[in-house]
Amino acid sequence: MELSRSKYKHLFQLRVRNFQVDSQGIVHNAIYLEYCEIGRVEYVRNLGIQLLPTGIYSDGLKINVKRNEINYQSPAMVDDLLDIHTRISYVKNSSFCFEHLIYKSETNALLVTQKSVQVNLNCETNRPERLPDHLRKIIIDFEGDNVEILS
Amino acid sequence: MELSRSKYKHLFQLRVRNFQVDSQGIVHNAIYLEYCEIGRVEYVRNLGIQLLPTGIYSDGLKINVKRNEINYQSPAMVDDLLDIHTRISYVKNSSFCFEHLIYKSETNALLVTQKSVQVNLNCETNRPERLPDHLRKIIIDFEGDNVEILS
Amino acid sequence: MELSRSKYKHLFQLRVRNFQVDSQGIVHNAIYLEYCEIGRVEYVRNLGIQLLPTGIYSDGLKINVKRNEINYQSPAMVDDLLDIHTRISYVKNSSFCFEHLIYKSETNALLVTQKSVQVNLNCETNRPERLPDHLRKIIIDFEGDNVEILS
Amino acid sequence: MELSRSKYKHLFQLRVRNFQVDSQGIVHNAIYLEYCEIGRVEYVRNLGIQLLPTGIYSDGLKINVKRNEINYQSPAMVDDLLDIHTRISYVKNSSFCFEHLIYKSETNALLVTQKSVQVNLNCETNRPERLPDHLRKIIIDFEGDNVEILS
Repeated sequence: MELSRSKYKHLFQLRVRNFQVDSQGIVHNAIYLEYCEIGRVEYVRNLGIQLLPTGIYSDGLKINVKRNEINYQSPAMVDDLLDIHTRISYVKNSSFCFEHLIYKSETNALLVTQKSVQVNLNCETNRPERLPDHLRKIIIDFEGDNVEILS
Repeated sequence: MELSRSKYKHLFQLRVRNFQVDSQGIVHNAIYLEYCEIGRVEYVRNLGIQLLPTGIYSDGLKINVKRNEINYQSPAMVDDLLDIHTRISYVKNSSFCFEHLIYKSETNALLVTQKSVQVNLNCETNRPERLPDHLRKIIIDFEGDNVEILS
Repeated sequence: MELSRSKYKHLFQLRVRNFQVDSQGIVHNAIYLEYCEIGRVEYVRNLGIQLLPTGIYSDGLKINVKRNEINYQSPAMVDDLLDIHTRISYVKNSSFCFEHLIYKSETNALLVTQKSVQVNLNCETNRPERLPDHLRKIIIDFEGDNVEILS
Repeated sequence: MELSRSKYKHLFQLRVRNFQVDSQGIVHNAIYLEYCEIGRVEYVRNLGIQLLPTGIYSDGLKINVKRNEINYQSPAMVDDLLDIHTRISYVKNSSFCFEHLIYKSETNALLVTQKSVQVNLNCETNRPERLPDHLRKIIIDFEGDNVEILS
């Protein structure tokens, strides 16, 4: 897990809403996965790819989450502005990995580290399928040396 | 809006969860619409109709919400057990109306009254379409004199 | 319900997220109440008042939702950008009313009209309490002739 | 991660709701963390401990999530009935670990495996604090040999 903020080339800001906290007044643990997903959709949009109404991406890819890992360092509260940092750390054959850091914008306190393994599925069979070359190229062009290409 | 609990022939119980409250520790105003929808899905299941993965019902109907009205009398809190009462109050040509009362099970305190106008859509054109006779019959058989048939 | 967009002096844009739709691919009916609440929090922020971690506003007010009315004209889909228009239409003794219009930004199609009656509560007794003069003044200064002062 | 269903002494059933799926018609990845949390609250209730409106448990404990790990094997769909299996796998000084298996009730297909590290916090300082003996005893009485006591 990359902890250096400077390795994350994509940043998206969002605000904690009243319906995202629990009765302790802190953001519920499941909601951070929504925040990270917003980070990924905006990361991918920045690469020129849009999420379609079908849940398929505009380049024809169907990407599902295979695994999430999330560590909670410090809680976010109602109305906090958050920095969602997103990077792709590696690309394998059909899968690849997003890493996220979430900071409280005002104080620069690190709140959450998150890792999300994605898998590229064939739209008809729903079986894993090699990530196509055009997407590999787009990722390498954006991440440069920061991404490991593992197959 | 029917306020007499005895006119509601369908009851579903559910429990308030930690992620459904806001920072005041009370259930968020939008969440009650989820509770009422759970009541409707269970009401319809009780009539022998199931919600399919496509969001269409098992008898081929596509029913969307046209209008919601909701009054908040008293707040629900974390871990409260709630009674969701559901009835159909009227049937028009393509639309019909659900009414809901939500009580706190333990104290019988009335928390919320809700009215939800539904419209039957043609699955292909998405345009309103007359509610079919088989559904009218099922509703009348269940609600008896409690439902008004307006066309 | 005011339908003329020009009477709404406050606009907030947000994007529909993947986890806010149902199995028909359209935004779930309860989620629009979250969107309207975001509109209200941003409207109030624009007046110089912030929502605190306690759910109380920074000027000491505790405002709860008393009633929601919402009409669904046309559905929003994943990744749509939405215009949330917010105004205060009237102020009574302890209550006041927000109105919202939600448009799809790209096409200017009207999706939703919403009305939300709020009540000012005493922070200790939780009983309705006259809306203080400093807030009345702020609202009138912002809304001008568009707001009715009813008591 | 314990994969044998027979090692899980606690089971809770729930139904997938329409507002918990995404535009692919499958349950959103963040929602399974809500399901697991429901499993934990019911597990703890079964031990005689209730979640209070403050988010504190009825025995005075404040337990927060420190880390979640979740693997998605197969997707749940709208209206699926799910079996949420919950166990405590180990207890350390101030932390302990829940494990969950989620199955589709109808087919017995394994959908999700989840691990959630919890930490006991001092209610005033919010700092980690040794899990009290009364809770250790309750856990050992329930889990027997299935739980590892690591300090």
